[in-house]
Amino acid sequence: MSIATVTQRIGVITSGGDAPGMNAALRAVVLAAEHYGMEVVAFRHGYKGLLNNEHISLNAPDVLHILQYSGTIIKSARCPRFKEEESAKLAAKNLDALNIQGLVVIGGDGSFRGAHHLGKHWNGKIIGVPGTIDNDLYGTDATIGYSTAVAIAMDALDKIRDTADAMDRVFIVEVMGRHAGFIGLKSAMAAGAERMILPELQKDKPLTIAAIVKHIKRVEAVRGAGSYVMVLSEHQWPGGAVALSEQLEAEYSMPCRPCLLGHIQRGGPPTATDRVLASELGVHAVELIRDGVTGVMAGLRAGELVEVPLEETWTKKSPLDVNLLRIQHEIFNPVKKPARDEQE
Amino acid sequence: MSIATVTQRIGVITSGGDAPGMNAALRAVVLAAEHYGMEVVAFRHGYKGLLNNEHISLNAPDVLHILQYSGTIIKSARCPRFKEEESAKLAAKNLDALNIQGLVVIGGDGSFRGAHHLGKHWNGKIIGVPGTIDNDLYGTDATIGYSTAVAIAMDALDKIRDTADAMDRVFIVEVMGRHAGFIGLKSAMAAGAERMILPELQKDKPLTIAAIVKHIKRVEAVRGAGSYVMVLSEHQWPGGAVALSEQLEAEYSMPCRPCLLGHIQRGGPPTATDRVLASELGVHAVELIRDGVTGVMAGLRAGELVEVPLEETWTKKSPLDVNLLRIQHEIFNPVKKPARDEQE
Amino acid sequence: MSIATVTQRIGVITSGGDAPGMNAALRAVVLAAEHYGMEVVAFRHGYKGLLNNEHISLNAPDVLHILQYSGTIIKSARCPRFKEEESAKLAAKNLDALNIQGLVVIGGDGSFRGAHHLGKHWNGKIIGVPGTIDNDLYGTDATIGYSTAVAIAMDALDKIRDTADAMDRVFIVEVMGRHAGFIGLKSAMAAGAERMILPELQKDKPLTIAAIVKHIKRVEAVRGAGSYVMVLSEHQWPGGAVALSEQLEAEYSMPCRPCLLGHIQRGGPPTATDRVLASELGVHAVELIRDGVTGVMAGLRAGELVEVPLEETWTKKSPLDVNLLRIQHEIFNPVKKPARDEQE
Amino acid sequence: MSIATVTQRIGVITSGGDAPGMNAALRAVVLAAEHYGMEVVAFRHGYKGLLNNEHISLNAPDVLHILQYSGTIIKSARCPRFKEEESAKLAAKNLDALNIQGLVVIGGDGSFRGAHHLGKHWNGKIIGVPGTIDNDLYGTDATIGYSTAVAIAMDALDKIRDTADAMDRVFIVEVMGRHAGFIGLKSAMAAGAERMILPELQKDKPLTIAAIVKHIKRVEAVRGAGSYVMVLSEHQWPGGAVALSEQLEAEYSMPCRPCLLGHIQRGGPPTATDRVLASELGVHAVELIRDGVTGVMAGLRAGELVEVPLEETWTKKSPLDVNLLRIQHEIFNPVKKPARDEQE
Repeated sequence: MSIATVTQRIGVITSGGDAPGMNAALRAVVLAAEHYGMEVVAFRHGYKGLLNNEHISLNAPDVLHILQYSGTIIKSARCPRFKEEESAKLAAKNLDALNIQGLVVIGGDGSFRGAHHLGKHWNGKIIGVPGTIDNDLYGTDATIGYSTAVAIAMDALDKIRDTADAMDRVFIVEVMGRHAGFIGLKSAMAAGAERMILPELQKDKPLTIAAIVKHIKRVEAVRGAGSYVMVLSEHQWPGGAVALSEQLEAEYSMPCRPCLLGHIQRGGPPTATDRVLASELGVHAVELIRDGVTGVMAGLRAGELVEVPLEETWTKKSPLDVNLLRIQHEIFNPVKKPARDEQE
Repeated sequence: MSIATVTQRIGVITSGGDAPGMNAALRAVVLAAEHYGMEVVAFRHGYKGLLNNEHISLNAPDVLHILQYSGTIIKSARCPRFKEEESAKLAAKNLDALNIQGLVVIGGDGSFRGAHHLGKHWNGKIIGVPGTIDNDLYGTDATIGYSTAVAIAMDALDKIRDTADAMDRVFIVEVMGRHAGFIGLKSAMAAGAERMILPELQKDKPLTIAAIVKHIKRVEAVRGAGSYVMVLSEHQWPGGAVALSEQLEAEYSMPCRPCLLGHIQRGGPPTATDRVLASELGVHAVELIRDGVTGVMAGLRAGELVEVPLEETWTKKSPLDVNLLRIQHEIFNPVKKPARDEQE
Repeated sequence: MSIATVTQRIGVITSGGDAPGMNAALRAVVLAAEHYGMEVVAFRHGYKGLLNNEHISLNAPDVLHILQYSGTIIKSARCPRFKEEESAKLAAKNLDALNIQGLVVIGGDGSFRGAHHLGKHWNGKIIGVPGTIDNDLYGTDATIGYSTAVAIAMDALDKIRDTADAMDRVFIVEVMGRHAGFIGLKSAMAAGAERMILPELQKDKPLTIAAIVKHIKRVEAVRGAGSYVMVLSEHQWPGGAVALSEQLEAEYSMPCRPCLLGHIQRGGPPTATDRVLASELGVHAVELIRDGVTGVMAGLRAGELVEVPLEETWTKKSPLDVNLLRIQHEIFNPVKKPARDEQE
Repeated sequence: MSIATVTQRIGVITSGGDAPGMNAALRAVVLAAEHYGMEVVAFRHGYKGLLNNEHISLNAPDVLHILQYSGTIIKSARCPRFKEEESAKLAAKNLDALNIQGLVVIGGDGSFRGAHHLGKHWNGKIIGVPGTIDNDLYGTDATIGYSTAVAIAMDALDKIRDTADAMDRVFIVEVMGRHAGFIGLKSAMAAGAERMILPELQKDKPLTIAAIVKHIKRVEAVRGAGSYVMVLSEHQWPGGAVALSEQLEAEYSMPCRPCLLGHIQRGGPPTATDRVLASELGVHAVELIRDGVTGVMAGLRAGELVEVPLEETWTKKSPLDVNLLRIQHEIFNPVKKPARDEQE
C-alpha cells in the first residue's frame, strides 16, 4: 500500500437545520481522526462554507468539552445552490486543493442529497452522519437530535399538564416534524397526551374540527371534566396551533390555549442518548473513511453499527412505530370506541 | 376575650390563572392553621366553587409533599359572575353556613377584586396572597409564580440561542405578560436577548417593523453576523410572534422563526424563590387572620413581611426596574446610539 | 372457552428499589387492563403488602397523570422473608382469596426471584416487568429507570465539568451500580469523563491509586493542565469517592473533590425513553396474562417485544457494550498508549 | 479634569471558588467598560495570574454569550501566598506596568481580603463583586451563585423525596456551606425537608444522634410512616452524611442513605436571579471605578445598589433569616413540641 492511499486529512461539515448532538459527533470525528493520525479540516456554515472555502483546522483541545452543548461550533446553514453541478465541482476543487481525502457530512436528508451530489464530482470518500431532530432518515433506528427534541417536547407537555389540570382546560402544543410524526408520537406517548395530529395520520384522513370536538367531549364524558392535551405536528393544520385553538373557542366555545415550541426543540443540553449515539457514529464515520468506504450513512440499527447507501436514506421511509400507535389510540385512549379507525 | 372571637376555621381558594407556587402557599396555609389549632376548608375551582359550595377539608397529610409541583391541587377557575352583588352575598352565606371566620384568597388582581367585593358583604377576615406569574400587583416585591415563569422563559431563550448561534438567525420568543413587562424584561436580561417588546415601552411609542429591521442590521453591523433574539410580550404585536416573524421574512427577506411559550410558563417545579415566598406569605396570611386583620394582601417588600390594602394592589402600579431597563438598553445593547430614546 | 378461563382480575406490585418509570408502567397496566375488561388490584409495599394483604383497587382515573413522576404511588419495599416457602404460600392464598388470576411484578432481579418463587406455589399467571435503574437484567435492551439514572448522572457530571474547568481540578463522581457498570459507562461517555471505575473492569484487574495518578498526569501532560473527571461505580473503592479523593490529596498532593449522587439517581421526571418503555412493557405484560403466558419477563430487544423466562433474567448476564468501552478507552482517551490493556 | 485622570483601562479577575454567574458578571464588566470607552484586561486564574502576569484582553464579542454558563472563562484559583506583602507589591507593579487604573475582583471573602491587602500597596481603584455560592458576605442581600446553589440543592432534594416516599425511608443530603447555613436553610425550606443541621444551629447546641433519632420517631408517630429528609451542611458532622447515615443504621437499625452533592452545586446554567444580579453588579462595579470609588464591594440591598467597605463584608456577619427559621422549626415541623428550643 503506497503512502499516498492512506487517508491523512478529512473534512467535516454540519449542514442544514442544526440538531442537538452535532457537537458531540464533531468531537468524535476529531478525536477518532487524531487516534488514527489524520488531520481534520472543518468548513463553517455547511456547504456554503465548502463553496466559500471557509475552513479551519480542528484539534482535540478544540472539541474536548463541547459535547454537552447543542448547536454546532462550526455553524450550519442551508445552501440551495449546492444542487447545481457547478457547486459540486467547485466543492470538489476546494477539497482537492486542501488535499482532503474524505468528508464527513453531519446533517439530514437535504445534506445527504448534497453529499450524494458531491460524490458524482469528487472521488474522495464521503460518509453521512444522521443529524436531524426529525428522525426521518431511513436505515438508522434514530437520528442524532431526535431524543433531545422529544425530551424538550415532553417537558413542555408536562408543564402544560400542570396548568391544564389546574384549570380543566384544552391545550394544543405544536411540535416540529412537518413530514414525520416521530417527535409528535413519542412526546405525546411520554407525556400522556390525549390526542396527536401527525403527518402520517393526516395524509390518509385529515381530521375535521368537528371530529376533534367530538373526541374532546367523549373524553370528558368518560373521565369527567379534566384536562385535554393535543400534540400537533407543524404544518398539519392551516395556521397551526394558534388558528386551531381560536377555532375551538370561536366555533365551539371551548376555551383552548396554544403553544408553539418552535426551535426550542433544538437547544439545551443534548440527552445522553443523543450524545452517545453521536459519539458512536462520529467514530464509525472516520473508521469507514479509513477503510475506504464511501457513499453511505453511518447508522445504528438494533444496537449494531450499520452502513446505509446515502440514496436509501431518503428514498425509503421509516414508518411510525405501529405498536406505539396502537397503544396510544386503542389502549391509552380512554374513550370506548377505538378512535384510530376513524381518526377522530 | 370570649371563645367565640377565636378563629377556629378558615377557608382557602386558589383563583384566576394558576401560578407555580400556589400549592406551596396552600401547604403553608394548612400547616400554619394546624399549628394555631384552626381547621382548613378549601373550595375547589376558586370563586366558582365558593358559590357552588364545592368544599373539602384539608389537613397536613394532604399537603405535606405538594410544594414541588405547579398547578393547584384544589384547582382554579375564572368566575366573571362573581362581580355581581348576588354572588358575593351567596358566597358570604356559604362561608357563614360552614362557620368559617377567615378566608385566604390566593390569586392575582382579578381575584383580589373579588375578595374586596366579598368583603363588602361578609364580615369574616379576608387576606389575599399574591399568586400570579405576571408580577403585576402593587405592594410586594414579587408575586408567587413570577420567578418560575422567568426561569422557564429564560430556559427557552437559552435553547433558542443555541440554534440561533448555529444558524446566525433572528428569533422571536413570545412570553406572557400582556399588561406588564416583568417577565419579558427579566428573562431578556437573564438570557442576554438583544431586544424586548414590552407593554410599558409600546404604550409610549410603539415600534415599527422598519425600526426593528434597522436595529437588527445595526447589531449585525457592529458585531458581525450572528444571532439576534427578541422577547415579545403577548398582545404587543398584531398576530404575535408568528405574524411578526412572517412580516420580517416577507417584507425584509430576513429569515426569522417564532416561538410561543404560552402556558408552559406556568408549569414544572416552582423555583426555590417561589416556594419560599409562598411559604412565608401563606403563613403570614394565617397569622394576619389570627390577629384579626382583614382586607389586605400579605406581601414581602425589601425582605420584610408587609400588609397592603387590597385596593392598592391593583390601583397602584409597580413600574419596571429602571436600572434594568437602562442596562439592557444603554449598556448591553451593542449598538452605538442608545436604542432606548427612540425605542428603535 | 368457558367464562372461568377468562382473566378478570389481575394484581400488580412494585418491588425492591424504586425506579423512575414504575408509575408509567403501573399506569399502562391499569389502562390495558381496563381496555380488556379486567380489574386491577394493587398491593402496596411490594411483596410485604402481598403478605399483609395490603391491597387497593386501581382504576384509570387513579393513574392517568402519574407517568411524569418517579417513585411509585403504590410504594415499594424490600422483603427478605419472601424467600421462605411459607411466604409464597401465604401470598398464593391471599391472591386466590381475592380471585386474582394474574400478577404483574414490576422490579429488578430480586423481585423476579420472588416472582419465580411464588410461581412454584401459585397457579395464576406471573409476568415480570423490568424496573431497575441498574439495567442488570438479561433479555431486555434496557430496564425501566436506567435511562433516567444515566440522565441524572450525566447532568451531575456536566455541572462538575463547569467547576472542574474553572479550577483545573480532579473530581470523582460516585454513581449507582455496584454489580453492573451500565450507568457508569453510559454517563461517563455522555459527559466526556476521562476515567471510569466500573465493577466489570475492577473484577479483572483492580486499579491501584498509583495507576490512577499516573493516568491523571499523562492526561495533563498530553492536554496541558485542565480538568479530570472520574466516574466511580459504588462499592468499587473502599470508602468510595470520599476516601479515594482523600487519598489523592494526602498521598499525591492532588486537590480532588468527591461527589456521591446516591438516590438522586432515582428521582425527578423520568426520561421519555423510560416512560415509553414502561408504557409498552406494562401493556405487554397485561396482554401476556390475557394470552395465558406465565413465568416470563416482558422485555424489549432490538425494537421488538420479547418474553424472557424469569430465571434467565438473573442467571444470564448482559455484558457492557464492547464498542462503547473501546471508544472510551482507546479513542476518546487522550493519552497516547491505550489505557485499557493495563486498566491504568 | 485632565485626560490622565480618566480611567481608560481596567483589570478583572475571578478568584477563589468559582460561582455560577461569574461569567455573567464578567460579561457585564466588559460590556459596561466598552460603553464607557474603557479597555478590559483579564488576569486568568485569579491572584495567581495577577502575580504571573497571565493577562488577556477581553472585548464584547468574547463575552456576549457566556452568561448562560457556570464556571468562569478566565478561570479561577486559590492563591494563599497572596497574603504576603511581596505579593501585593508584585501585583501592583504588574497592574501599573499595564497602565491599569482600576481592578474588579469577583469572588468571596478570601478574595476580598486579597483586594483589601492589595489596596494598601496599589493606588488604583479596587471594587469587589460578591461571587460565592455561600452567601456569607455582609452588606448584600445575596451573593452571585447563591441562588443557583440553592436551586441545585432543592432539585436534588426533590429527587430524593420521590424515592424516599416510595420506600418510606430516611435520607441525608449534604450541601455546601461550612461556615454559613444559607444554602441549607433555603433549600430545606424550598424542598420541605424535615430537618436541617446548619453551622449556626450547631454552634450553640450540637445535635446528638439520639436527638435526631427521637425526632425521626416523633415525626413518624405524628404523620404515620413516611419519608424523612435531612439537610446537612458540610463539616457539621464528623464524617459527613456518609458517617451519619451509617451510624443511624448501625446504632438504631434505621435504614438511611446519604447523598453528597459537593461541587455539582456550582455548575449548570445559573438561575435568572444570579444572572441579573451579576449583570447589575458588574455594571455597578465599572461605574464605581469610573466615579473614582475604591475599596468597596458593589452590592444589592432591598432592591438598591449599594457600596460596602470591603472590610465590613467579612468582619460583619449576616444572620440567617429569623422568620424562615421560625417557620421551618415551629410551623412546618409537624411534631407537637417545638423542636427548635432544644435543637432536637
